[in-house]
Formats: sequence, structure tokens, C-alpha cells
Amino acid sequence: MSAVNREPVLDGWGFAGESFPPPAALWAWLQERLEGPCEPLPRWRPHRFRPPAGRRLPKLPGEVSTEALDRLRHARGRGLTDLVRLRTGTVPALPDAVLRPADVAELSSILAICSQAQVGVVPWGGGTSVTGGVNITAGPQKMISLDLARFRGLLELDDASGLATFGAGTPGPEVERPLAARGLTLGHYPQSWELSTVGGWVATRASGQESLGYGGIESLVAGVDLVAPRGGWSLAPQPASAAGPDLRQLVLGSEGRLGVIHRATLRVSARPQAAEVRAALLPSWSAGIEAVRTLVRARSGLHLLRLSDELETGVGLRVGLAGRRLAAALLRRWLLVRGAGAPGCLLLYGAAGRPRRVRGALAAAASVLRDHRALRLGAGPGRRWLADRFRHPYLRDALLDRGVAVDTLETAAPWSRLEDLTAAVRTALTATAAAWSERCPVLAHVSHPYPDGGSLYFTFFFRCPLDPEQAVERWAELKRAATRALLAAGGTLSHHHGVGAWHAPWLEDEIGRSGRTVLERAAAALDPDGILSPAALLDPTDRLEE
Amino acid sequence: MSAVNREPVLDGWGFAGESFPPPAALWAWLQERLEGPCEPLPRWRPHRFRPPAGRRLPKLPGEVSTEALDRLRHARGRGLTDLVRLRTGTVPALPDAVLRPADVAELSSILAICSQAQVGVVPWGGGTSVTGGVNITAGPQKMISLDLARFRGLLELDDASGLATFGAGTPGPEVERPLAARGLTLGHYPQSWELSTVGGWVATRASGQESLGYGGIESLVAGVDLVAPRGGWSLAPQPASAAGPDLRQLVLGSEGRLGVIHRATLRVSARPQAAEVRAALLPSWSAGIEAVRTLVRARSGLHLLRLSDELETGVGLRVGLAGRRLAAALLRRWLLVRGAGAPGCLLLYGAAGRPRRVRGALAAAASVLRDHRALRLGAGPGRRWLADRFRHPYLRDALLDRGVAVDTLETAAPWSRLEDLTAAVRTALTATAAAWSERCPVLAHVSHPYPDGGSLYFTFFFRCPLDPEQAVERWAELKRAATRALLAAGGTLSHHHGVGAWHAPWLEDEIGRSGRTVLERAAAALDPDGILSPAALLDPTDRLEE
Repeated sequence: MSAVNREPVLDGWGFAGESFPPPAALWAWLQERLEGPCEPLPRWRPHRFRPPAGRRLPKLPGEVSTEALDRLRHARGRGLTDLVRLRTGTVPALPDAVLRPADVAELSSILAICSQAQVGVVPWGGGTSVTGGVNITAGPQKMISLDLARFRGLLELDDASGLATFGAGTPGPEVERPLAARGLTLGHYPQSWELSTVGGWVATRASGQESLGYGGIESLVAGVDLVAPRGGWSLAPQPASAAGPDLRQLVLGSEGRLGVIHRATLRVSARPQAAEVRAALLPSWSAGIEAVRTLVRARSGLHLLRLSDELETGVGLRVGLAGRRLAAALLRRWLLVRGAGAPGCLLLYGAAGRPRRVRGALAAAASVLRDHRALRLGAGPGRRWLADRFRHPYLRDALLDRGVAVDTLETAAPWSRLEDLTAAVRTALTATAAAWSERCPVLAHVSHPYPDGGSLYFTFFFRCPLDPEQAVERWAELKRAATRALLAAGGTLSHHHGVGAWHAPWLEDEIGRSGRTVLERAAAALDPDGILSPAALLDPTDRLEE
Repeated sequence: MSAVNREPVLDGWGFAGESFPPPAALWAWLQERLEGPCEPLPRWRPHRFRPPAGRRLPKLPGEVSTEALDRLRHARGRGLTDLVRLRTGTVPALPDAVLRPADVAELSSILAICSQAQVGVVPWGGGTSVTGGVNITAGPQKMISLDLARFRGLLELDDASGLATFGAGTPGPEVERPLAARGLTLGHYPQSWELSTVGGWVATRASGQESLGYGGIESLVAGVDLVAPRGGWSLAPQPASAAGPDLRQLVLGSEGRLGVIHRATLRVSARPQAAEVRAALLPSWSAGIEAVRTLVRARSGLHLLRLSDELETGVGLRVGLAGRRLAAALLRRWLLVRGAGAPGCLLLYGAAGRPRRVRGALAAAASVLRDHRALRLGAGPGRRWLADRFRHPYLRDALLDRGVAVDTLETAAPWSRLEDLTAAVRTALTATAAAWSERCPVLAHVSHPYPDGGSLYFTFFFRCPLDPEQAVERWAELKRAATRALLAAGGTLSHHHGVGAWHAPWLEDEIGRSGRTVLERAAAALDPDGILSPAALLDPTDRLEE
């Protein structure tokens, strides 16, 4: 789980030496589903990379790196098309330099100089954005990547209040390690946890996989400190306040536009003494959603609820049961008895805390699930999911190696809309692919449930064209169709991936002209020259193909 | 509990025919504490009121009332000095007219016309602000009060998602009545509940007394609709979103400056089948805070925790035990056995929900309280508090009738600061009064606890000068001293009363220059002529004596 001494790869997700090749059953399933053969998307050799020299920058304080691979490393996030461009050497622009300020004084000075010289500044945490949020755009404006790696570690701890202050550049494992030593946890585990940082979580309103128990980052942030060209801004930790609007919630999701977040004070909890994840099969998507809704509205004390649709369940069981003939036979028998052809929908449900409370929450959940005609599957599927949960993103590179593009997208909506929303996104994706005479299988799950609704997470696959430009174009078409569909069906533009550059053209559809104007004015007040993350959040240019 | 057919009084709190005369034991306690005799502050006769005619306004659509008492009714909120000015006929300014738009079209048209003519507009819900938030200020600008009484009632219900949409002018009882008929509750019970409205709650970030269970209004709002001079703005209900900053949280607490809130979609829950409030005595303020902190951090499932300090406990027990000799004797005996001179600190703790869960939460709490050396007092004190909780504000008028001014102020802070904060505010108030050779007894309680901190609520008393200007002056001095002290001790400017006009001079101390600039720019974007609630939130003029 440690990120120390692990080298991030340049042309894919994560750390060198890690990978997650598709299980044979998944690969077989994909080959059935995707029409025609898949040709591997070759990798170039980034280490032979000789980029154009960075443009001349004003004199900047501290460490200024113009080293080619350092610039390449900071050129893109890790969305599907970032992976395609990085592995094929078709990255259109690099930052002119990478800066790693040592402290707030250096950070402030960099921003002041860049503001005066109109140099664009893109803050960089773990670089795991899947929405183009940290991508360097080509154009006349000089750009630097501002790496917060030196704003790192646990800075303060108010033990009585459960408030821990971290540097913005602290990655997930380095958040949990010092907390664990004190019997505490933040409990924030996004899929990118091993790489992504406190500052990135705050800037993008990230959610961890146990947000049901611990809350998303938007409820974990008590205070935040940032610096903009116009000066520093500290919002001290408070449990709650009616001193006007909650400006912390304006900083959360500001994606660099309101300033560079350099530290955050987070609400931490007692480390759970026990944690368990159980699995069950619900008869259908509709019945599963109803079960999850019931569990959450009854405040069941669970930390995790994750419901896969029929297709995702089918794939999951096929992978999970491969080589386990007896289990597979038993399951088939149960389906036969129940008169169901399909396996139904897999639900993972988990609790964490004191052993007695964990047992209580799981027992209460089991009783609700019984009412919803669920078949309980025990702890196996949950254990497998927990073991692999931070490895799943590596699958994207492994599938590109085999010529298959896989991406994910996500949204959220009130419970009353979730079923229609699922169908709308699936239809949009499959219809778009059908127009190219291709297939696009779509898996879906509900995670991050709330009393009034839940998030929907889609995984979609298509044959990756060998020409990277065509691959990017196809992905962009799918993405546009899905985004239009999810907004029309009442979903939010993003539940936890953020807006970045890629969702920005649709932001106004969600927050209205007034919302957009308010954000623009707020950004202009703190960053009058508009140097901070200029392509993210508020620039409506369609950059899906960049 | 119904507000229907009850006439609000013109020169005091609440409804005609209601009152809450001080219990004899409280009055005796006050007479011991306040040095010298108290002379009743006389009431004038508002019904004989002949105000100057309203100034000429541009032609406005809908019902335009210029009736004298209607204007008087909409001139002030219900803070202590509002009561003083209303009862002594020293209100410095009235709105030039009161408007009650019938729908969004009328509302929009009024705002457009007023914006063009530079007429100030103060939105009015229940008129219960205790921070000068709805007060009409004297000056050359013409002013209207915009009463939202016709935006009223349950407009939509999404039962599956637990989302209920109400008109902004709906008062508390009219929120709960239609919900109760459907087995639902909002569970938001501020002390002003019988009068205050949905729009007012949202505009000021109100908290209900059971916020521990249901959340403050900031977590109950899923969506909100407003109109500003620049147009309408709808933020659709979503369970959560990473589509940029949460702009709902910018509207929550905007106190009219970003637009007139005309409807809100609120998260509702199943109506609890059972609800119980129990009482216990903790040995000291410090031990009590520690017990509350422990209970909240352990997520004990309680809906209510309210801890009185020693002084408030003493007064409360004196009032509660008056005439109950046996109980008083038993308590004295227990204190003797324990070796304590003072009664300690009264804690009310309550749970609501399914009977089994209520029992479980109360039993778990009792076990924690045992560890904290608490004496359990049963259900009596809680029952009494519940019965009177919406009547307490009437005490202010009854005490003015007897020559005593009483006011409240509140803040919140992380747990680590609460004890120092309590002492700082108490010292500031008593020292200020001491400079006039007066006494100012201060009661305090913790309510609205969170895992990382809690709110502190202070009640303070002083002899009310017969000259209303001197009364206002003295109150302003106390208020300034307390506000400076609470900010210096790390408290927030307000936990749930809001900023209004009276706290506005200190807003920048809390949110910084950047925060202030961001809010000013946001307001200017939606209301370029600055007509909306011009004295509230962002105007740093000290208006405590107005």
C-alpha cells in the first residue's frame, strides 16, 4: 500500500512494475461482445523522448525543472485519451517548466510573477485527473505545472476535535500512515488513493469508496488554505457556521481556479476496530436499487453499498467463479430454483467500527435484504474486491495492450431517476458505437448512496482504433453522447470525477448562467489575469479531442 | 402549534395572546443578581401609529401595501433592540411599501423595476431575524419589504427520493403538517419555528434543535430556486455532485444578497415512531463537554444533545424544582454525598426513530454517561423543555415589562476551544457591564454538537435603562465586546443566527479579504445595482445602535 520509493510510470496509470491484466474470463467475455479482432495499441518509448525546449519564462524562485521527462510527466492526467496519447507519443503540449515550491512564500511569489507575465499555472497533485483537469493545452500562452509535492505530510493534529491538517501534496497512503499511528483514520479511499493527494481531492470534490460511512471530501474538510495571485486565503476549521455562505464549499470543486490549495484541515475518526464487506445477489437492477435505497434511508450504519447491474454482475461472477466449479454449479442451481435466467445484481455491503456495531449493522442490513429477496453470498466477493480495488485502473493499460479501450464515467441523481438514467446512458453509448457498426458493452453500478439518491458509475468498452487520433475521436463521440444523455435524464455532470477541461462545455447546463457568472467573477477577483488552470472548469471550449 | 389564524404582535415577539412570564424562581434569581431595582420599560400604542407617508415608488406589479401598520410590521426583525424600539415607538425607518408578489413572474418584474429605479428590496419571511437582517435602514434610498407569504406550501414531493419542495414563505408548522400526513418529517425545529420560514432558514443557514439527528438546513437543502435582478437561478436537487463548487452552499447564508429565494427542495425523512428526551447531571462544565464530545464522536445515534453550564443549570433546577420539595431535597442529598457544592451541569439527550433504535441509542448514551460520572434525572426536565421550547423567546418581552433586558448570542468552535471560548465571552460581557457599575449574569449551553466541535449559546441579562437610546447603546457595547472576544477565542461569528446587519462589520475577520471580495463580486454579478438587502452581510457599517 505504500507509495514511497515507487516510481510512477510515464505512459500509463500508476507505478512501475504494477499491472492488472484482464482475467481470462473477462477477456473471453469481451471477445464475445466486441465484434471483430482487436489489435494491440503499441507503446512508444517515452524515455527516448526529445521534446521541443520549453519557452523562455520570467525568473521564478525555487527549483525550476525543464527536464524533458519531468515536463512529459506533468503534461497530462490519466483519462483514457491521456493514456492513448502518452503511450503513442501524441501529446500535443508540455508545460514549459515544472515548479516545486518549497513553502507558501515561494508559492506566492511564483503566482505573482506568473500573473504579471501572463504565464498559465496548472496545480499538480497526483496527476490522476480523468477529466483533463491538469492537462497542458497547446497555444501561445506559456504554461507551468506547479507540483505541490513539497507541501506534504501531517502538519497539525487537534486530537480532541479530530482535526488533522495536511499539506496539499500528501498522497493517500501518507495521510493514513501518521493517522493510523495515532489510532485515527480519514477513511477517504478513492480508486486513485495510492497516487492522488489531499489538494486534488479538495479541488475536485472527490469521494472515497466508503463515503457512505465517512462522507465525501466535501464533508471531511473543516478548513482550507490557499494562495491566489491576489494573495493568501485561509478559512479556519469550524464544525459549522452561519457566518454567511460556506466558502469552503466554494473552494471544494474550484479545480485550481480560485487559488492553489496548499493545506487542508480534515475531520478524522477513530480507526475502526473491525471492518467487513459482505455480498448478496438481488433479483434485478430495479429490486437492487430499491434495496439500497431502503438501506440508506433507514440510516443503517453501513460504510459501503455497491450494487452492480446484471451485466456487471454477470462479468464479475464469471471472473470470480472461473475455476470454481462447485460454486458455479450451486449458483446455477439457485437461479434455476428461483426461476431466474440471469444471475441478478451483486450487492457489496460493508460496515466498519467497533465489532459490536459492525455485527449490528450487517445483521440489520441482512434482514432488510431478506425482505428484498436477496441471496447472501458471504464475504468472498467483498474480500476479492477490497484486495483489488486500487489495481482496477491498471486494467485500462492492459486492455489497450490488447486493443480494447475501456473508460468509465459517472453521475448521480435522486432515487426516482436512477433507473431511467442508467438506461439513457447505456443507450447513448451503444447507439453511438452502432453508428460505426461497432459494439460498446456498458457495465453499471450504484455506489456512494445518499438518503435522497445515489451515484451511477459506468464502465464501457470499445475496440480501440490503431490510429490514436481516431481512437480519441471515437471516445469523444461516446463521451459527448453519454454526457448529453445523462444531463437530459436529470443526472449531475459528475459525482466525483470533477469538471476539468472535458466536462466544462456542459457546466452551464447544470449550474445555469447565474452559477457560471458567479464562478467567473469569483475567479476574476482572486486571479485577475486568469492564469490559474485556464482550461479547467470555466472554459467552455470542447477539448475532448485534444 | 398551528400558526394559522394567529395574529402576530406588532411590538414584540410572536403571536397575540401568547406570553411566557418569568417563573417566580427565575425572577427571584434575577433580582439577586442584578444590582438595584428594575423599572418596567413602558409599551406605547402601535395601533395609534401615524407614520410619515411612504415615498413615491415606481409603478410596481401586484399588491402594493402602504398601510401604516403593515409597513411597521415589516420594519424590523425581532432582536432585543428591535423589541425595545418597537415597544417604545423609536423605529427610525419604515419600508415605503410592502409587496407580496403572487408568483415568479411578478417577483421578477418587481426586482427588474426596483433595480432600474435603485429601490432597495428586503426579502421578508417570518421576520424573526435577531441580527438586523430584515431591518429597514434610514437613508435616502427608497426601500420596500418583499413579503414572500404567497410563495407558500408543499409544491412537489418526490417520495422515493425523500425530496419535498416548498415555497420559501412557508412557516415551520405548514412544513410539518403536509409532511406528517404522509408519514414524513423535515425535523428542522429552530426556536423561531412557529414563525420563521423555509426561505429564511435557507438565507441564514438556520439550525434546528435536533440538528444532531436531522442536520442543519445546510444539509437539508438539496435544491433551491431564486430570482435576482439579473434573472432566475435554479439549482436542481442532487444528492451530491462534483460539477464544480457547491453553489447551493453559496446561496445558503446569502441573506438576500444573491437573489430572493422563492422555493427550496428539502430532504425529508420518515416521521419517527418514537422520540424521547432524557436528562442527566454531569459533575462540571468541563466533564459535561467531554461527555458530549465523546457521545458525538462515537456517532451515538442521538438526535439532541444540550448541555447547560453550572449557572444555567442552577437557574433551571431552581425553576424546575420550585414547589417540588422532595425532589429538591433528594438532589441536595446527592450533591452532598458526591461532595459537590454546585449542582453540576444539566444535559438533555434525546433520540428519535423506531422504538428499538431509540431505546438502543439512549441505552448506549446512558452507558457513556455513567463513565462520565453522570446522575441520570429521567424524562421530566426534557419534557418540560420540549413543552416550552417555542415559548422561550416570549420571555424577552415579559422581562422588558419588568425592566430587565435579556438577549442571546451564539457561536461555534472546535472542541479544543470550547472551554476558553465560554470563559472569554462571559468575561467580556461581565467586564463591560462592570464598567457601568452594573451586573450582567451570563448563562451558557452547548447545543448542535458535531464530531469536531459544538455551538455555544449564551443568554445574558442586564437592567434595561428607561431611555430606549441608552438601552440600545448598552446592548451594543455588550454585543461588540462579546463579538470581539468570541472571534479572538477562535469562535465563528455565528452558528445559526446569521450575519445580518449587526454582525456584518466583523465578517471579514472570519472569511478574510478574499472571502469578502468573492461574495461582493458574486452579489454584484446577480444584482449589479446592489438593491437586495443592502445593509445585510456585506455592508461593514456598524448598525448596532440603529
